[in-house]
Amino acid sequence: MPVPSAPTFTEVQAAAQRIQPSVHRTPVLSSRGFDEAAGARVFFKCENLQRMGAFKIRGAMNFLLSMTPEQRARGVVTFSSGNHAQAVALAARLQGVRATIVMPADAPRSKLEATRAQGAEVVFYDRLKEDREAIGRRIAAETGAVILPPFDHPWTIAGQGTAALELAGQLDEPPQALIAPVGGGGLLSGCSIAAKALWPRIRIFGAEPELANDTYLSLQAGCRVAIPPPATIADGLRATQPGEITFPILQQHVEGILLVSEAEIRAAVRFLLLRLKILVEPSGAVAAAAVLHRKLPPDLSSVAVILSGGNVDPEALAEILHAG
Amino acid sequence: MPVPSAPTFTEVQAAAQRIQPSVHRTPVLSSRGFDEAAGARVFFKCENLQRMGAFKIRGAMNFLLSMTPEQRARGVVTFSSGNHAQAVALAARLQGVRATIVMPADAPRSKLEATRAQGAEVVFYDRLKEDREAIGRRIAAETGAVILPPFDHPWTIAGQGTAALELAGQLDEPPQALIAPVGGGGLLSGCSIAAKALWPRIRIFGAEPELANDTYLSLQAGCRVAIPPPATIADGLRATQPGEITFPILQQHVEGILLVSEAEIRAAVRFLLLRLKILVEPSGAVAAAAVLHRKLPPDLSSVAVILSGGNVDPEALAEILHAG
Repeated sequence: MPVPSAPTFTEVQAAAQRIQPSVHRTPVLSSRGFDEAAGARVFFKCENLQRMGAFKIRGAMNFLLSMTPEQRARGVVTFSSGNHAQAVALAARLQGVRATIVMPADAPRSKLEATRAQGAEVVFYDRLKEDREAIGRRIAAETGAVILPPFDHPWTIAGQGTAALELAGQLDEPPQALIAPVGGGGLLSGCSIAAKALWPRIRIFGAEPELANDTYLSLQAGCRVAIPPPATIADGLRATQPGEITFPILQQHVEGILLVSEAEIRAAVRFLLLRLKILVEPSGAVAAAAVLHRKLPPDLSSVAVILSGGNVDPEALAEILHAG
Repeated sequence: MPVPSAPTFTEVQAAAQRIQPSVHRTPVLSSRGFDEAAGARVFFKCENLQRMGAFKIRGAMNFLLSMTPEQRARGVVTFSSGNHAQAVALAARLQGVRATIVMPADAPRSKLEATRAQGAEVVFYDRLKEDREAIGRRIAAETGAVILPPFDHPWTIAGQGTAALELAGQLDEPPQALIAPVGGGGLLSGCSIAAKALWPRIRIFGAEPELANDTYLSLQAGCRVAIPPPATIADGLRATQPGEITFPILQQHVEGILLVSEAEIRAAVRFLLLRLKILVEPSGAVAAAAVLHRKLPPDLSSVAVILSGGNVDPEALAEILHAG
């Protein structure tokens, strides 16, 4: 039974049409070395090579292009640990829409600078003490701006799902499984809608840091479970619970959430950097980490992995290299 | 007038057919951020994403596939600072041919390990005191192995030229210029043959570190000039003079060699890593460095840049990040 408020596959297709002029068709890479280590044929959908360095531009662009002219005139406000902020800032600039971003005070510097470089206004909050959504709602109430949620909205979800739709056109045959990182679940829910429509027999998995296992716990409990703000290196996956809209989609489509340690995430970042020659941020590498460390069922011989982003501060990257 | 011993365009096309099953069709990436900094539309041919992390597999594979069965039975020997060594080792393993690699004792550890992992025998030499070609010739004389030169052979050159041929099929329209790094000149000479055949009006440039400007000096002098072993960070471009075969091809096709400082090379590696999210080794980034630092004639509005390799030790990479 379809989930209420969940975008349909047709809406994902419409989103792909809508955003196509504004986003990159990111390459799909593979590596015999990774395949050997993982024990399966792996296809990487490189959203780290997407505009602004992450898949988030897909959802942001689809949201802005789905708004009415009246809504656009009021501007948008959003809250984000980084990649969503940059994406909204870019999409808003491209559409001539005013954007306000509520951002944690400890967000990576590169993400803060990239957001400001797009002309967005940044409002800081304390990730451990304040509620970013409440701050966003207050700004929306005061200015009339439309809240552009980082994951829990059908327009956002449909936009993120275009990554899987695009991937389908780049593979010669269907993979047996698709796996993506899970923060609030926007990417995985959108991609699962597209993938299940295209390939009904595909098995869908999510990957989370052990330290940020809110979706894992929620799927086990059968209802949305909130965890304290997690301290994982995967700063893009620090959402404390899955969304109201994303969660039922994940319940419907996802076979399991694979958990990875912080060391496994760092090892995957290093492998992808030094062997595949691509920079993937820790959040973007959790699905690859799960596959590299053989957390998938062993009977899967071909797997599509979404590398969701590549925005890392040079200092953080140097630390990951030293930890090797 | 065609250069004697230079491969023809037809031979580059034949090489492309021959090696196609064994090499990656590497993606072409672009970045609005890089274009803005460079003042031109730039298309990156990502040979850093090639098998073994560099374009060298193209020439090595074409060489092995052009040999007679009798030659193959005798094995191959080669001398290389790294990427060519790895490529020959891989190509030889794929073809079931025995390979001996003469390698500088101070070659990056990652390159040494990758070469040995392919089953090749490694013989070390002192880059500052010994003549690697003499050592290679001695081994060839003793064992009957065929010398597989890193750049100065028509089969090698034709193989490297397939990078430009492949690029042509990936661009919507001809670029105004093509630029590639120059060590011994195998990549640039091969690509210039292909590019000039495909796009007669294209302007061809090479890029060298200021510290390793042997081809720049040679083109100025009108004859091959040798320099002392250079100390550039671009360890793949430490050839001390252009080849006997490559040099006349470069004389015929190349408009100019652009020189870049060590700091400019590091800055390009950082830009490509942190903004484009791809790992390019210093040698592989010199052409990008020249474009980023606007060494090209200012009237060029579209440029194809070959990123020739991505093999860097993590320690060296961390240092480059810290230097930013």
